Amino acid sequence: MSDVTELDARPTYAFLGPAGTFTEAALLQVPGAANADFLPCSSVNAALTKVREGKATAAMVPIENSVEGGVSATLDAIANGTKLQIVREALVPITFVLTVRPGITELSQIRSISTHSHAWAQCRYWAEMNTPNAEFIPASSTAAAAMGLLDADVTYDAAISSPLVAQQNSLNVLQTGVEDNTGAVTRFVLVSLPGTVPPVTGSDKTTLVIPLPEDHPGALMDILDQFASRGVNLTRIESRPTGEGLGNYFFSVDAEGHIHESRMSDALMGLHRITPDIRFLGSYPAAEQLSPNYGRHNSEEAYREARAWVDGLRGITGGL
Amino acid sequence: MSDVTELDARPTYAFLGPAGTFTEAALLQVPGAANADFLPCSSVNAALTKVREGKATAAMVPIENSVEGGVSATLDAIANGTKLQIVREALVPITFVLTVRPGITELSQIRSISTHSHAWAQCRYWAEMNTPNAEFIPASSTAAAAMGLLDADVTYDAAISSPLVAQQNSLNVLQTGVEDNTGAVTRFVLVSLPGTVPPVTGSDKTTLVIPLPEDHPGALMDILDQFASRGVNLTRIESRPTGEGLGNYFFSVDAEGHIHESRMSDALMGLHRITPDIRFLGSYPAAEQLSPNYGRHNSEEAYREARAWVDGLRGITGGL
Amino acid sequence: MSDVTELDARPTYAFLGPAGTFTEAALLQVPGAANADFLPCSSVNAALTKVREGKATAAMVPIENSVEGGVSATLDAIANGTKLQIVREALVPITFVLTVRPGITELSQIRSISTHSHAWAQCRYWAEMNTPNAEFIPASSTAAAAMGLLDADVTYDAAISSPLVAQQNSLNVLQTGVEDNTGAVTRFVLVSLPGTVPPVTGSDKTTLVIPLPEDHPGALMDILDQFASRGVNLTRIESRPTGEGLGNYFFSVDAEGHIHESRMSDALMGLHRITPDIRFLGSYPAAEQLSPNYGRHNSEEAYREARAWVDGLRGITGGL
Amino acid sequence: MSDVTELDARPTYAFLGPAGTFTEAALLQVPGAANADFLPCSSVNAALTKVREGKATAAMVPIENSVEGGVSATLDAIANGTKLQIVREALVPITFVLTVRPGITELSQIRSISTHSHAWAQCRYWAEMNTPNAEFIPASSTAAAAMGLLDADVTYDAAISSPLVAQQNSLNVLQTGVEDNTGAVTRFVLVSLPGTVPPVTGSDKTTLVIPLPEDHPGALMDILDQFASRGVNLTRIESRPTGEGLGNYFFSVDAEGHIHESRMSDALMGLHRITPDIRFLGSYPAAEQLSPNYGRHNSEEAYREARAWVDGLRGITGGL
Repeated sequence: MSDVTELDARPTYAFLGPAGTFTEAALLQVPGAANADFLPCSSVNAALTKVREGKATAAMVPIENSVEGGVSATLDAIANGTKLQIVREALVPITFVLTVRPGITELSQIRSISTHSHAWAQCRYWAEMNTPNAEFIPASSTAAAAMGLLDADVTYDAAISSPLVAQQNSLNVLQTGVEDNTGAVTRFVLVSLPGTVPPVTGSDKTTLVIPLPEDHPGALMDILDQFASRGVNLTRIESRPTGEGLGNYFFSVDAEGHIHESRMSDALMGLHRITPDIRFLGSYPAAEQLSPNYGRHNSEEAYREARAWVDGLRGITGGL
Repeated sequence: MSDVTELDARPTYAFLGPAGTFTEAALLQVPGAANADFLPCSSVNAALTKVREGKATAAMVPIENSVEGGVSATLDAIANGTKLQIVREALVPITFVLTVRPGITELSQIRSISTHSHAWAQCRYWAEMNTPNAEFIPASSTAAAAMGLLDADVTYDAAISSPLVAQQNSLNVLQTGVEDNTGAVTRFVLVSLPGTVPPVTGSDKTTLVIPLPEDHPGALMDILDQFASRGVNLTRIESRPTGEGLGNYFFSVDAEGHIHESRMSDALMGLHRITPDIRFLGSYPAAEQLSPNYGRHNSEEAYREARAWVDGLRGITGGL
Repeated sequence: MSDVTELDARPTYAFLGPAGTFTEAALLQVPGAANADFLPCSSVNAALTKVREGKATAAMVPIENSVEGGVSATLDAIANGTKLQIVREALVPITFVLTVRPGITELSQIRSISTHSHAWAQCRYWAEMNTPNAEFIPASSTAAAAMGLLDADVTYDAAISSPLVAQQNSLNVLQTGVEDNTGAVTRFVLVSLPGTVPPVTGSDKTTLVIPLPEDHPGALMDILDQFASRGVNLTRIESRPTGEGLGNYFFSVDAEGHIHESRMSDALMGLHRITPDIRFLGSYPAAEQLSPNYGRHNSEEAYREARAWVDGLRGITGGL
Repeated sequence: MSDVTELDARPTYAFLGPAGTFTEAALLQVPGAANADFLPCSSVNAALTKVREGKATAAMVPIENSVEGGVSATLDAIANGTKLQIVREALVPITFVLTVRPGITELSQIRSISTHSHAWAQCRYWAEMNTPNAEFIPASSTAAAAMGLLDADVTYDAAISSPLVAQQNSLNVLQTGVEDNTGAVTRFVLVSLPGTVPPVTGSDKTTLVIPLPEDHPGALMDILDQFASRGVNLTRIESRPTGEGLGNYFFSVDAEGHIHESRMSDALMGLHRITPDIRFLGSYPAAEQLSPNYGRHNSEEAYREARAWVDGLRGITGGL
């Protein structure tokens, strides 16, 4: 892979569409996005398939929501199939607007609201309080629901969607901030084919897929110990079924640190020894500022000195 | 709580409805279900609210799917609010049938299929292969989609639903087993207000909600060590966001063993010391046969002898 | 056992004699020693046998030296045979004096020095520097060597002994502080038959004999984890051979805390489960001031709350 | 260092003398000992000083006794000062003989027995049973006691010594096997200046001196975890005072494995990171046959594969 975000003359970015979703908002954060082609896809899998087939430079997909948790479709899709690599992450605040069809000017007039069932779940309490008589009309996406208001023969009164789609289409916004949880944020990742790992910044994350090696008390502890014993903090851990029956898991984790840092590469070697089917999904700059606190004995200097000491004892004059 | 499943003259069971869903199939496994009132609810939260408000004896809700993973709505609902207790679990194989409106006799005739988006996700590949020209029509539930076929003015050709709803309503089944993953199973739990814990059977599970005490390398290990050091195996572990921002988790776990067994009560005491906001959600017979392998030193006998030894040293003649 | 140091009308204390040794100095620290009978013994084993046979109320024996390490004879004697209990400890600074026979007034006159081989080992460098021509004459004890100078026909010029014996016998001290390591200290323990444990002071030690359960990587870790997971610090750890061949060990440890404190009794129960042949040798006030730093989650309050929580869940209304 | 046992035209071996001790018996086990010069020394320190000063090729010193435990003088001497390396170990069964002066033909005639106090401690029970009227006469070594019987004016009746000295000097042996513990064995090590490490045999030991980094619950566990997490078993662990006051320790350990094996070199690197003052004292063939059981994930193959995997991810095409 060439460096996705800088080298392509005109990159093509697949994303979980349609236009106007939060995923497009995440994509707009990528440097140079203005000069890229955007390729909306109907599902996370479809977007990643574009990358796997070489039809897109990279794909932006949601991976974690501060209220809903991990995005299963993404976690499963990047854990299986052709190997992929996360090269960047982006945070997008999740806030919803209520848009209405022409003729609606007050909440009390609303008898039906269309949106995606996930968005509905996040705004349901607001709706019960503010539009108690409104029926929920499921839509295939929030954007589709909002765009439907532009149809002359729309059959519902209102839609719940991202601010972006309302703005892009000059929709009639009756109310902003209709989400039940304010402050929610979704984390998105930009995924490409495997290639060069972005350089160390000191505030990096590494994403891994780790199959649980055997089902015994302590199997997960053996895995976590590989991180903890090197002072590596985990910022996310998700268990996902392997699909081979209840009780069979893999873990999707984000760890503070970069594969080019010794404490992380040492942890990766330890993990590979106990669960060789581990999958590396990339080291990349964290969207938020991290201040890893791993102790002097896990520093590059401590690793370098330890390696020099053992090499000296082993009589390896050239060193590693 | 009186014993939910035996003492109530005529218990009322709330469940994630409508009638004909897999959740009703789970409820039908409860002994005495034939003599109970069933109360279908529109959401997991609604069903649990019936219990919390005393309007239902217990509620049957899905908690884990072998393909999709944990059911977030349930995990979050039982982790927060008024305390609840799991008193039973039930496994239901997940298989879907394709039912059709009058007049449709061949797959090639189908131009539209309605179902819930979750069911669609589980049958999408079958649909692409077998009904490539069919459009997906989102429905509020698989049962609603199936029942819609009974309407004279139904606007779609087919529905994907559980076998139960098709059978209960004598619908026209064109094809069985349309799910992409055969062998999938969903685990349901019967939830009541806190009360007497079912007796030890030797093949029990204990469900816990464990907030992560602090964010440092090893915080999760400290928790897992409370189980591992007593030989307690975990059969399920799910991380869920607390809703207080990315990186803030609680863990929902099922552990092999019963609170009336010493290794489990000892682990619970250890957990409470490090994370006092832990929530106990019940000990109950496992649906599958477990053979906990915890070693002689974690047996009741070892605990009893250890307690007697220390009590003797401390001069407690009466014992604990 | 009645309380050794307070209740006996006139206690009898056995000690590693003869009179004038550091052990007698330790014994003089015991409250009420002035009104006790002292029973010098020729070996640690002999002193402990007096206790085991009921011929002494307690025995004072050395257990650890800051330079030489653990005193094997004591560690082995209290680890085996009839059970004993440590009820007190005492620290004695180890400093030696050089006493001489009549007629010797300068170091240069000294041609031979008698002392116990252990004392010689601790003063050898001083002797090489200051009495380079002196031959070492082994004696059965430092006191015997010093007392020998009182004999008219003594065959050596000087003796190395404790200050106590020189003072008690008005010997001629040519030089004080002849030890190579200044600041050395020996820890002694007062040992009785098992009885009431002294009350908690907040600055206590507990002494244990812990057989290593099996020889596998991590067996010792399993033991240490019982302390570490309860925040219990070890102030001494000695491995001793069981006598059943190289590689078979037991561990003699001192841990901060008291058996009447929950973190310690919980650790003891955990230890008993994994190595039932553990031997409790007493909880007693530390000679030095300890400030155990075990964290809020290992406090009495945390234990009490955890126990109350689990008891409540188990429906034990009476509590423990 | 050249290879001590093979290359020196005529090596000089220092040992804890005098001639006829168990240490000389250990030295006689070294291949080529017949063509070496033996240099008896009065103490362990003196023997090691010969090596440190280049006056001996190597020194044979006792390190561990199956009954008495670690030999403190050796453990401390090799842990401090100029660095040394263990290149070989030897096991010697410890059995004592009773030799007598001319004229003594029965045990009942014996009124005094001379030997070193350590030997006396190991035969005291036998003496009490068989020569109840005999007084103990301390000697500077067992050999000196035995050789004394050759003096015309010997003042004692008998001596306890090794069989070797009795045989070398044709002494009159009245009784063999007078030790209280039959089956005792002492382990000796051959110590040289640092040099080439003997090759891997598959049944090797590595000896280390490990300062305890800080005094907190778990400090020792952190150290032991470096071994346990790589499946490295410890065959010996001794705590020794650093001489800086009670409670300050270093650990002397023997671990199964060789520095040229990855699991050991990885453990060494981990140890160096947490306690940089660790001292490596050699990897050498075990005297007894070891069968290290470290699991597939700690094998050379697992290490090689893990390293290759991480190197590949890091883009290091040349490898380490």
